[in-house]
Amino acid sequence: MPVRGSKKAVAIVSGGMDSVTLAYLLASEGFSLQLLSINYGQRHLKELEYAKLCAERLGAEFDVADISSIGRLLKGSALTDDVPVPHGHYAALNMATTVVPNRNAIMLSIAYGVAVAEGADLVATGVHAGDHFVYPDCRPEFIEAFGAMQKKAVEGFGDASLRLHAPFVEWSKADIVTTGARLGVPYADTWSCYEGGEFHCGLCATCGERIEAFQIAGVRDPTVYESVGVG
Amino acid sequence: MPVRGSKKAVAIVSGGMDSVTLAYLLASEGFSLQLLSINYGQRHLKELEYAKLCAERLGAEFDVADISSIGRLLKGSALTDDVPVPHGHYAALNMATTVVPNRNAIMLSIAYGVAVAEGADLVATGVHAGDHFVYPDCRPEFIEAFGAMQKKAVEGFGDASLRLHAPFVEWSKADIVTTGARLGVPYADTWSCYEGGEFHCGLCATCGERIEAFQIAGVRDPTVYESVGVG
Repeated sequence: MPVRGSKKAVAIVSGGMDSVTLAYLLASEGFSLQLLSINYGQRHLKELEYAKLCAERLGAEFDVADISSIGRLLKGSALTDDVPVPHGHYAALNMATTVVPNRNAIMLSIAYGVAVAEGADLVATGVHAGDHFVYPDCRPEFIEAFGAMQKKAVEGFGDASLRLHAPFVEWSKADIVTTGARLGVPYADTWSCYEGGEFHCGLCATCGERIEAFQIAGVRDPTVYESVGVG
Repeated sequence: MPVRGSKKAVAIVSGGMDSVTLAYLLASEGFSLQLLSINYGQRHLKELEYAKLCAERLGAEFDVADISSIGRLLKGSALTDDVPVPHGHYAALNMATTVVPNRNAIMLSIAYGVAVAEGADLVATGVHAGDHFVYPDCRPEFIEAFGAMQKKAVEGFGDASLRLHAPFVEWSKADIVTTGARLGVPYADTWSCYEGGEFHCGLCATCGERIEAFQIAGVRDPTVYESVGVG
């Protein structure tokens, strides 16, 4: 258990590799942590169980912000409706169908609301460079603009030092795994797969990305896959 | 019924005077309208009935985005918890207790998500100059920063022309009433009061602001008040 500091961070944690590594990194830096999972009506809630487990292990507070009822208003995503999940390697044509419109702005603005209410110093997100190609709201330009907007939005409320922290925004997923391995992140207890099966499918785009990240990082992959994808 | 244009606007409409006037203004400009009310766990939902009525009158689509379950995470507001509602004239000390942390950023980012899904041209909000003193997220600097952030967030998705429209951001509430009277806005069917009684209480800060706006505009106030405040 890391030493708990007086600085507090609200971290958006989905239960995936990136956000769980983020939580471990912040804990190692002495932050008192509140982990916030967002239920935006994704197909399955399996990853939220891993977010909760992460909070328990780190002695962090844990909350789920349930905005699933707005899912029907954000139509057109394979993650929230009945469009089939794309299989195969990461590619723009595949991933575009998994985009929930404006998801990061919605999640981050809720996290900021919680951070103001809690008097936190930091809102943290695990977005990384591998997301940039398809998701504009994971790019450094978005993170910078979002932080600037929030400075204007909460001026005079909460702690003036409240800021947005996206330490992985220029990192590859392999970089994240390398750091996570050093921090002892239990990757077997993280979830990437778009399908909600008992094990990772090994075939969908995020499974492919997960497999690749461990390979490039040279870190043993503890994940059990149903199938081995074509890479 | 106004002529429906090919341009589409997603407007955040609470059922209050400002947002209902906004809807009438956009309709008069030929926009096809989707009115979006946000249930963020406010004390009462009376104003949402007026938002729905506004949509029916304008032949607009109407949706409620229910994010009430995150209310408990946004603690410390008289609008969402058991702190007494402040009475009397508008004043910073009073109104600060009615602030839901980061409310406008949360509502606007949801509206942008809906606008992208709908292929809309405009996200519209009725924030006005009278809100500036206490609410940083109603000031022009915030509106500008939010629009800039959203340009980065949805780059490549939806219509590239999608923009944030806050026509009242430099207007007083009396200016809004003057314009609304010209547009035939049925102000008797709008709701301002923080209390959820049968009639407007006439004593709370927003009732005071409402009474004052009609007086300054020189427009007959059709509202029934339980009591007459001290002004």
